Amino acid sequence: MAGNVFGKIFRVTTFGESHGPAVGCVIDGCPAGVDLSAEIIAAELERRRPASTVSSTARREEDAPEILSGIFEGKTLGTPIAIVIRNTGQRSGDYDELAGVYRPGHADWTWEAKYGRRDHRGGGRSSGRETAARVAAGAAAKCFLAAYGVSVSARAVSIGGETEEAAIEALLEQRKAEGDSAGGLVECRIAGIPAGLGEPVFDKIGARIGAAVLSIGACKGVEFGGGFAAAASRGSANNDAPLLPPRSAEAGAQNASFADNHAGGMLGGISNGMEIVFRAAFKPAASISRPQDTIAANGGKRRLAIRGRHDLCIVPRVLPVVEAMAALVTADLLLEQRCAPAQEARKGPSFH
Amino acid sequence: MAGNVFGKIFRVTTFGESHGPAVGCVIDGCPAGVDLSAEIIAAELERRRPASTVSSTARREEDAPEILSGIFEGKTLGTPIAIVIRNTGQRSGDYDELAGVYRPGHADWTWEAKYGRRDHRGGGRSSGRETAARVAAGAAAKCFLAAYGVSVSARAVSIGGETEEAAIEALLEQRKAEGDSAGGLVECRIAGIPAGLGEPVFDKIGARIGAAVLSIGACKGVEFGGGFAAAASRGSANNDAPLLPPRSAEAGAQNASFADNHAGGMLGGISNGMEIVFRAAFKPAASISRPQDTIAANGGKRRLAIRGRHDLCIVPRVLPVVEAMAALVTADLLLEQRCAPAQEARKGPSFH
Amino acid sequence: MAGNVFGKIFRVTTFGESHGPAVGCVIDGCPAGVDLSAEIIAAELERRRPASTVSSTARREEDAPEILSGIFEGKTLGTPIAIVIRNTGQRSGDYDELAGVYRPGHADWTWEAKYGRRDHRGGGRSSGRETAARVAAGAAAKCFLAAYGVSVSARAVSIGGETEEAAIEALLEQRKAEGDSAGGLVECRIAGIPAGLGEPVFDKIGARIGAAVLSIGACKGVEFGGGFAAAASRGSANNDAPLLPPRSAEAGAQNASFADNHAGGMLGGISNGMEIVFRAAFKPAASISRPQDTIAANGGKRRLAIRGRHDLCIVPRVLPVVEAMAALVTADLLLEQRCAPAQEARKGPSFH
Amino acid sequence: MAGNVFGKIFRVTTFGESHGPAVGCVIDGCPAGVDLSAEIIAAELERRRPASTVSSTARREEDAPEILSGIFEGKTLGTPIAIVIRNTGQRSGDYDELAGVYRPGHADWTWEAKYGRRDHRGGGRSSGRETAARVAAGAAAKCFLAAYGVSVSARAVSIGGETEEAAIEALLEQRKAEGDSAGGLVECRIAGIPAGLGEPVFDKIGARIGAAVLSIGACKGVEFGGGFAAAASRGSANNDAPLLPPRSAEAGAQNASFADNHAGGMLGGISNGMEIVFRAAFKPAASISRPQDTIAANGGKRRLAIRGRHDLCIVPRVLPVVEAMAALVTADLLLEQRCAPAQEARKGPSFH
Repeated sequence: MAGNVFGKIFRVTTFGESHGPAVGCVIDGCPAGVDLSAEIIAAELERRRPASTVSSTARREEDAPEILSGIFEGKTLGTPIAIVIRNTGQRSGDYDELAGVYRPGHADWTWEAKYGRRDHRGGGRSSGRETAARVAAGAAAKCFLAAYGVSVSARAVSIGGETEEAAIEALLEQRKAEGDSAGGLVECRIAGIPAGLGEPVFDKIGARIGAAVLSIGACKGVEFGGGFAAAASRGSANNDAPLLPPRSAEAGAQNASFADNHAGGMLGGISNGMEIVFRAAFKPAASISRPQDTIAANGGKRRLAIRGRHDLCIVPRVLPVVEAMAALVTADLLLEQRCAPAQEARKGPSFH
Repeated sequence: MAGNVFGKIFRVTTFGESHGPAVGCVIDGCPAGVDLSAEIIAAELERRRPASTVSSTARREEDAPEILSGIFEGKTLGTPIAIVIRNTGQRSGDYDELAGVYRPGHADWTWEAKYGRRDHRGGGRSSGRETAARVAAGAAAKCFLAAYGVSVSARAVSIGGETEEAAIEALLEQRKAEGDSAGGLVECRIAGIPAGLGEPVFDKIGARIGAAVLSIGACKGVEFGGGFAAAASRGSANNDAPLLPPRSAEAGAQNASFADNHAGGMLGGISNGMEIVFRAAFKPAASISRPQDTIAANGGKRRLAIRGRHDLCIVPRVLPVVEAMAALVTADLLLEQRCAPAQEARKGPSFH
Repeated sequence: MAGNVFGKIFRVTTFGESHGPAVGCVIDGCPAGVDLSAEIIAAELERRRPASTVSSTARREEDAPEILSGIFEGKTLGTPIAIVIRNTGQRSGDYDELAGVYRPGHADWTWEAKYGRRDHRGGGRSSGRETAARVAAGAAAKCFLAAYGVSVSARAVSIGGETEEAAIEALLEQRKAEGDSAGGLVECRIAGIPAGLGEPVFDKIGARIGAAVLSIGACKGVEFGGGFAAAASRGSANNDAPLLPPRSAEAGAQNASFADNHAGGMLGGISNGMEIVFRAAFKPAASISRPQDTIAANGGKRRLAIRGRHDLCIVPRVLPVVEAMAALVTADLLLEQRCAPAQEARKGPSFH
Repeated sequence: MAGNVFGKIFRVTTFGESHGPAVGCVIDGCPAGVDLSAEIIAAELERRRPASTVSSTARREEDAPEILSGIFEGKTLGTPIAIVIRNTGQRSGDYDELAGVYRPGHADWTWEAKYGRRDHRGGGRSSGRETAARVAAGAAAKCFLAAYGVSVSARAVSIGGETEEAAIEALLEQRKAEGDSAGGLVECRIAGIPAGLGEPVFDKIGARIGAAVLSIGACKGVEFGGGFAAAASRGSANNDAPLLPPRSAEAGAQNASFADNHAGGMLGGISNGMEIVFRAAFKPAASISRPQDTIAANGGKRRLAIRGRHDLCIVPRVLPVVEAMAALVTADLLLEQRCAPAQEARKGPSFH
């Protein structure tokens, strides 16, 4: 309910509106002994800030995280970790003229449908600012995963359909001149993940990662391994031949257990020790300066050109967010595996 | 945990192995007064049975559901609804020669990695048989939704990349002759859905539907509205212009509130009253009679040709499963909306 | 929500109305390899049947459980275990004259307040019949616990305030003659429980057991160790002196770690290796044949004498229910301990 | 899992160790439009501070709450509410001599059993300091309830077994002189609560309140209405005669629906419109200056007299904590009632 809590064991509650005092999160269930500091979190948040590129316009955002609990002498205690990131740099004035009209492609319309009112000042909790809290929590998850040799990394595959850097730059310059925007495709890989994570039936690892990634604003699709291309393939091509049995010591080596990876690292909803590979599609940024048709609250037609500072394409900023969500799911599944029903009942008090 | 429970309020627990006495489900949280009967459930299950087509091979499966609780005089009581479907028609012998080898594309390998053992007889709980329980639960959800004027329907968009019926038939004949299989693409529409469902941040409606659909075996991707094509689009084309304000009486008419539906019925993770439209990609059926490379439990190389009865393409059978999952999510979100934080505090005992 | 699901990992969903076809449960999260059979479950259910004693009147109830899933060759698979117990022996006619009046002390009044209607035929899901499903699930939990050397046993401490058997018999004969009823006090001990179970803050072991026991119908109070008497004690008397440090091998011996057990087996919400000891108070059976004042649905005053078959005191029947709830909580906490944040992050794939 | 999250819809995550930078909470699911401010929260926290009485010794604690999110112009937004309370006034030195010995009656021993280590400096997250976060969250719940005309108030019934004020003072003086401590009994009433809250079977209102109250440190028992005395009573005396039918307009008046309230405001686990009345037993404060037997980490016997600042009896400080937990449960149940299965399925988009 309310949708602000994520995860089952490695559980994260986020808070904060873009125009309130702060955003942040509380992480419950992170094991003890993990190296974590405000510096580590700040480094992840830095990746999220709008860079001075053609793609993004720099809104002044400063993300200096403060850890209020759960850490002692640089290591997690196993108690809840509260991280606060103060808000600075919002300029309400930028948004005043948007009061009373619905920005196409934004949540203004649906927010009002759901809540009966709308915060026109930058989107409140529906804006991109809340992703700062996700990235902070993801930083903790990544530190936990690091101790297992698991790493998560995302990259932009294409922007506006272009894959080559020069073509991307040209396309973005064009869109900027037109007052328009571009979407993009992100690929993410989870390396070093052990086999056996995920639960058959409803908690398949693809379902868990998919839910996490689809919860990122502007994400319109997710695919694993062969993905949508597999729908047009054949079994003899799409099946990956096993090379090593599950329990073989060699099976631990990255990407050695199967001849190929159309499966994207999962079979029957359970990780198979190959890299998890997935791609996420992000729609074009909704705020554009080019005039659009819309309506006002009373239904009257309006033409709207959104001035101010907004991104041409959110993909560069969303990479750490995709990684954060993938890391949170992987951390959660690692911990869930410890109490999975596979564990045979054992006699005696040593049940660890 | 354990992954056999789905949903938050309209909650479903499924049970049953393909070679146990029965499969079934218990539905908790279904409101009272919904018309439901064993006949209604049986009709949905019938759609799931392998039909006598080139695509599927008929395994004798009889799905005669029995309702053990929660219904009185044809209507739900509001108490848990237990539905049992006895297993018949399994033939263990079909699977004996598979003991000791890992079927490529199946969960054999990962099941053993996770549980330390493997049930070679038809997949146990990783087989398609457990979808019968999902479809039974989905039938109840559909009945609940019907009272709201909400309907769910899925169709096959393409099989093996082909969209035209004649080309599909030809492709399937070809694959059959080759001892191979085909994947396919399913499109599902949720019509009549009110605006305002879904919670921003982590419980976005796309995340919830995505998780549900990606939990179906063989599903390798899901996209909403413009989906992956939106990644190559521009804002001016992808944004849908609002035509009616949220609270307008006319906004209730299906598909009248926006000029287009690239959004696929959701903005900012909240339904906008337009049809929800999503597509799910299914990989080719993994069991093929054409020989494949694999290994035995001791690591020795094997050639495997899977005889017996298996589908060329699972898409025709999976349509009611996709609908069931979409219906379960929609029912859940409808009920969650009732206790969403949007509800202002009111004085007095009449808090309904 | 809906209140029919219990537990976090060892999770139970119960179903069934007293006048429907069956009651039963689905257990999710029970580890694999636990010895379990219909015979074991039937033996526990037998303890719950009304015995031919002065205290109880025998209603014909037959509890022949059927296991529909999750067991293979006498051991759990780790998949959901569905248990069905068919209803027999209800006689609707017994209850017809109760239609239209509210039985004092029963849920008739509140059920109607909550649901807007009422099932006068024996209480539906508010009757004692649903405890059969709890006892069946508890049987599975007990089998799991047995492998750990953990046992649960409840006994009647007093009935109607009397502790000696002769006095109890006399009191019950008296109440029967008067057409009245009696309450009682139950004590339950969980032996062999390892130290370390329970989570500080909200999931203290006392809170979890308390919730479980207070969910049993007619339970009006629960206390642990010194309980309500501790409220009148002093620290020097109530504190238990430690004799052995936590990690000492000898600490595993039952009841050896502390000089006394006013704590009832828990400190700071975490088990300390001593026996868990708690007591539960049950109010007198509400159905009595002696006339009582009540009202009809239209508010008119009535005098009501409840004929038919009802218990003088529910305590003898409730002992296996108390044990079942305590066993379910203990099983759940044992599994939760496996993924508690105490587990330090470790490098490498062996995360078990 | 991890035990730091409480509630299903009105959900609270607490954080903070007594020796970290801050304690606090995040409240998710609080409806919009509730009056809430830092001043209101501070007033509740003030009640929790150790007063200058014989019973408590004043440790310097300053609780100045800061609200970081979820409030706008004095009203809740419906988004998560983050409340931070900075820690001041801890003096580590007070605790240094306790390193290496287990304080009888405290969680030192069990914390080490569970986590393998122990924070000797004031109990970390097992100390009373974490109750500040509960009281802050409870303040928000109370504000929400106020709009419904529901109020919660707790009082001390007895301390050390004494009920009269003069006798209590004398007893506490005596215990202080002896270097000992006292326990006590708290009674709490929830007035104005509507009928129909709570779910039969596992989420009975008594189970939910019981779990909440038993999660408060030092609580060793809870009883409702007649409680443990009902165990020695008879049906004719314990049953409360209904005076008004459930739906009668007059039934809304406080305490008018039944002739008596042995039920403590609940029947069959569902509130009946009468005051909820429960009592909670608190054991004597465990820290006493009088010497006690204990052991060191290596098992060697020690005599321990705990110097420094500690309470003679925690009851005066725990009253706002008991109220907070009762308010949190009541707020949660009010919201759950909105999506209870009682709600009949209705046709059309107006599903509110």
